[in-house]
Amino acid sequence: MQKIISVDKDNLEAIAIGGAVLGSGGGGDPYVGRLMTNQILEKAEPVKVIEVESLNDDELILPIAMMGAPTVMMEKFPSGNEFTQLVSMMEKLMQKKVSAILCIEAGGLNSTIPFVAAAKLGLPIVDGDAMGRAFPELQMVSFTLGGITATPMAMIDDKGNGATFDTISNQWTEKLARALTIQMGGSAMVSLYPVTAKDCKKYLIKNSLSLIHYIGNVVKEHSFNAYQILAKELHGKHLFQARVRDVERTAGEGFTRGVVKLEGIGDFIGRSAKLDFQNEFLIAMEGETVLATTPDLICLFDANTGEPVTTEAMKYGLAVNVLGLPCDPIWRSKEAIDLVGPKYFKYDVEYKPL
Amino acid sequence: MQKIISVDKDNLEAIAIGGAVLGSGGGGDPYVGRLMTNQILEKAEPVKVIEVESLNDDELILPIAMMGAPTVMMEKFPSGNEFTQLVSMMEKLMQKKVSAILCIEAGGLNSTIPFVAAAKLGLPIVDGDAMGRAFPELQMVSFTLGGITATPMAMIDDKGNGATFDTISNQWTEKLARALTIQMGGSAMVSLYPVTAKDCKKYLIKNSLSLIHYIGNVVKEHSFNAYQILAKELHGKHLFQARVRDVERTAGEGFTRGVVKLEGIGDFIGRSAKLDFQNEFLIAMEGETVLATTPDLICLFDANTGEPVTTEAMKYGLAVNVLGLPCDPIWRSKEAIDLVGPKYFKYDVEYKPL
Repeated sequence: MQKIISVDKDNLEAIAIGGAVLGSGGGGDPYVGRLMTNQILEKAEPVKVIEVESLNDDELILPIAMMGAPTVMMEKFPSGNEFTQLVSMMEKLMQKKVSAILCIEAGGLNSTIPFVAAAKLGLPIVDGDAMGRAFPELQMVSFTLGGITATPMAMIDDKGNGATFDTISNQWTEKLARALTIQMGGSAMVSLYPVTAKDCKKYLIKNSLSLIHYIGNVVKEHSFNAYQILAKELHGKHLFQARVRDVERTAGEGFTRGVVKLEGIGDFIGRSAKLDFQNEFLIAMEGETVLATTPDLICLFDANTGEPVTTEAMKYGLAVNVLGLPCDPIWRSKEAIDLVGPKYFKYDVEYKPL
Repeated sequence: MQKIISVDKDNLEAIAIGGAVLGSGGGGDPYVGRLMTNQILEKAEPVKVIEVESLNDDELILPIAMMGAPTVMMEKFPSGNEFTQLVSMMEKLMQKKVSAILCIEAGGLNSTIPFVAAAKLGLPIVDGDAMGRAFPELQMVSFTLGGITATPMAMIDDKGNGATFDTISNQWTEKLARALTIQMGGSAMVSLYPVTAKDCKKYLIKNSLSLIHYIGNVVKEHSFNAYQILAKELHGKHLFQARVRDVERTAGEGFTRGVVKLEGIGDFIGRSAKLDFQNEFLIAMEGETVLATTPDLICLFDANTGEPVTTEAMKYGLAVNVLGLPCDPIWRSKEAIDLVGPKYFKYDVEYKPL
């Protein structure tokens, strides 16, 4: 896997596609995200991608993200000016200048949006993230496992309303920020988990931007066969080949939730499966058999084009390949499973690694 | 009416009783508030009550209040330490030291709670408020009419979670802060509408602490006849004498809402009336006839003891006198009626001053 060192309009495409794969169905349509990020990158210098080791221990790294239901986020993509306001709110709270931007998740829109902030502010972006994928709730980051607090956190909406938080736990930050996200119309721009480079070096899931860049290029090159290459290269498993037979989808409580019913095709003919999602896919079941659960990734690829399929883009009749990808090893400790495993999401199922 | 110049355990009693009268049914039980405020005042110097004119124009005045459903507030009275945190959050946001504390409303618990803050911090309290009564929503203050913004605003809960706001309008502050109040368990301590003495001199409803102190003393002295004295002295109207026949009460969306049904006694025998409340009483109706509506005050007095009756204390069989009191003249402009009149609360009724 080749490391990326800068991002412009051209290689942003691969990042957006790879981000949609690790988005595990969540995080919004990467095409929309890419088109909008392109607008900013057209007028700005390429964004430098750096390794966290290149920063001094006391330098400040600021994650930037969009919070809310992807269904809503797609309608309210940032203009770019929000970031200037967000970063200045955080610098005021932290009493320190920011040295680099970070993606809190290497999936969905949140793998491209921070490039808008970085381009706009002329800051580099760190190669890595705090999930190694996308997760639906804000406490679900490697930083939480390292005892790093989500606050001080800043949040703004598209109308210009701003809020900051200082909470007693990352679960409380999620609860309070989610309630405001709903009031703000279902999505908001946030900056949270301000970290020193020292802490970031310890708890970052490294090279995930290079990874999604690589994944995106595999998809571009191998189209409908990409899922097979990725299964092999990333030690994943081909779980199902199917047509979408039903999609239930509701946006509420600040999330997009739903269920997808799949009817097997090809080698899977005569079988059926079901996927549940809360922004991201949480569990894949064939009857009573669990095929895969969070924190492992459940990724859908259009069987004809090979492109990743988000929960927004799923529709009746679409032929898909379902791939299970192992999560980053950090998510497999007992503590991590408590934070992001199936029981947290109320499934009475033990997590079994893919 | 005599001006009060300091508040200790002794005259806090009259303030709490008078505050319950102008609380117009809302704002929580004054006895509980007084007992708890007493605990603080026992260990502190009396709180100096000052006129806003005694401050220099550029000095900072900080309103302190409890936000939420009175039903919940009663269970979570402050320890006193929250205020130190709140004031320090606000001083950081304002980059300025606070010179005096202010009651945002001269009704209910919020007419006594700021004394806890003032005593704890050794600060004086300004004789006045921004409502001349209690209202249920935070944008319903004379400051809004003067174009003064509610933010920067700070908010903390009993667990130690804190948030700050910077919004585009006072209605947005209400919306966002209310959502957090609900997540924080139904009530929170807040500081908002930080004002310079210059602005405060313009938009303050003056002497309202002296007024509730006076009202409280009338109640103490004249017991069950107090409502008659107050009707005369404050140009009010005796609207009804009745027994409570039914009380519906729900706490939700950050408010206590309900309806009280009254059956006439004494001169009102054979007649019936209905009072609606959202924290405070909003409207009194006899059949289709409107007896009084917000912004005028609808105040209940126990017919036997003369004590003011809050919506929490209402119960089947209680004999009450219902008094209508004219609101401060500031609430009678068209702009003010839009902000706090019956139509805002979805009553299809024109406001007719008492």
